[in-house]
Amino acid sequence: MLIFAGLGLWDEKDLSVKTLEAIRGADHIYAEFYTSTLPGADRGRMETIYGRPITELRREEIENDPGPLLERAKRGTVVLLVGGDPMVATTHIDLRLRAQERGIPVCILHGASIAGATPGLLGLQSYKFGRSGTVSRPYSLPLERRSPSGSGVGRGWVPGDAYRAARDNHGRGLHTLLLLDLGMAIPEALGLLARAEENEGGGLMDLLWAGVARAGSPEPAVHADTPQQLARFDFGPTPHVLVLPGSLHFMEAEALRTLAGAPPELLPREKP
Amino acid sequence: MLIFAGLGLWDEKDLSVKTLEAIRGADHIYAEFYTSTLPGADRGRMETIYGRPITELRREEIENDPGPLLERAKRGTVVLLVGGDPMVATTHIDLRLRAQERGIPVCILHGASIAGATPGLLGLQSYKFGRSGTVSRPYSLPLERRSPSGSGVGRGWVPGDAYRAARDNHGRGLHTLLLLDLGMAIPEALGLLARAEENEGGGLMDLLWAGVARAGSPEPAVHADTPQQLARFDFGPTPHVLVLPGSLHFMEAEALRTLAGAPPELLPREKP
Repeated sequence: MLIFAGLGLWDEKDLSVKTLEAIRGADHIYAEFYTSTLPGADRGRMETIYGRPITELRREEIENDPGPLLERAKRGTVVLLVGGDPMVATTHIDLRLRAQERGIPVCILHGASIAGATPGLLGLQSYKFGRSGTVSRPYSLPLERRSPSGSGVGRGWVPGDAYRAARDNHGRGLHTLLLLDLGMAIPEALGLLARAEENEGGGLMDLLWAGVARAGSPEPAVHADTPQQLARFDFGPTPHVLVLPGSLHFMEAEALRTLAGAPPELLPREKP
Repeated sequence: MLIFAGLGLWDEKDLSVKTLEAIRGADHIYAEFYTSTLPGADRGRMETIYGRPITELRREEIENDPGPLLERAKRGTVVLLVGGDPMVATTHIDLRLRAQERGIPVCILHGASIAGATPGLLGLQSYKFGRSGTVSRPYSLPLERRSPSGSGVGRGWVPGDAYRAARDNHGRGLHTLLLLDLGMAIPEALGLLARAEENEGGGLMDLLWAGVARAGSPEPAVHADTPQQLARFDFGPTPHVLVLPGSLHFMEAEALRTLAGAPPELLPREKP
């Protein structure tokens, strides 16, 4: 059996009790941290707390040579640990299909994910989020997420697809979650989005945006303001994400003011 | 301190190790199951496994009379346990704002949520989901989620807002997650959506849909087919959700075929 298990958002203790039991009962435990990091964790501490050795896999070991892992899953119980929810990346869907082809039973133990956590940290309603995007640096986007048009790779590259996701959602009153490349901080992302706006047009960069740092940690930072002000705010270490709020219910506006320090003049007036 | 803690998707052991430690160290533990159920759980088993008594709160105790809970959180450490992620419902955002007003520190321990788990169970990419909707029965929708137009309450009521979410997303190539009312099964939801289509127009009810039952349980059911066929498929007990897939990447199409039994003639041809 192959068990895909999510580690949740921050550190060694964000996995579920069920996942911990699966680890302790498994024949072999793998982990990969290249599709999603677990920022507050350390493999040594994980092995101590879980009481089992963990084999960390590199990208090519999962994507090009999954044979040994699948062979072990055919003979016994294998757990693959992944940050966040375990089925977010295409890599894991591909691995699951390969397991299925070989008749290996698959089990999924879900974990908290950044897309689930961010709305709540800002007090925004999750059902009002449109599609999300990723603000990537040139060359870093996986092939299947490169937009066929408008986001050429290399010099002059801009995150056109992420900008358009925000613009399309905003036009419909929806909120947008933008993930940032590994290690990218909010000022760099806002700079790339401002360059995308020069190409795309859309007038989003004078609106109220919100930033979230270290979701799921004991000290997450949230702040909402114009991009100019957000770029000056000290969010502390990454990971960071950005949100462009759409139409705001009065309680969402109140939450952005109270929880994220949004300037009242950027918020819709309260319901009469 | 007031700690909002998510219990995850299915049973007593889907909470995180960190949440279990918070429960064991808290002065008082509350739970509410009216905004989100934990289908495989039982309060007696929760108390046994967690080793602490749990006070279950009814809707009115949280929404109209949160004073006693906040008073306890002012003097000591209170954990409020909620199914899924703890900040999805407006109720909890409201409670968090009240705590903030009274100077009570708040901590959020995230949990896996249905919106995070569903894409992975079907092999669909989560970033390609547009806004989600809820297929509700008449009168059951909370006020703030009632659409101002087209979804009148009472006789002749149809889930117009959920239908329009699916139609808008599909027109943009995006996937749609539709949650169903508590206890509602897929055939009832498809019937309501077919009635909505009569009002709204949109031609969605001849397309490929997917259903997911008991996400996060040891035996989730997934199946993809036309609404006519899905209504006949035995998904087993609720909770159920529906997904209308949008444009499919070839690996998403392969996943729907392999994992959800989608008929090949309803899928786009494979990439040449």
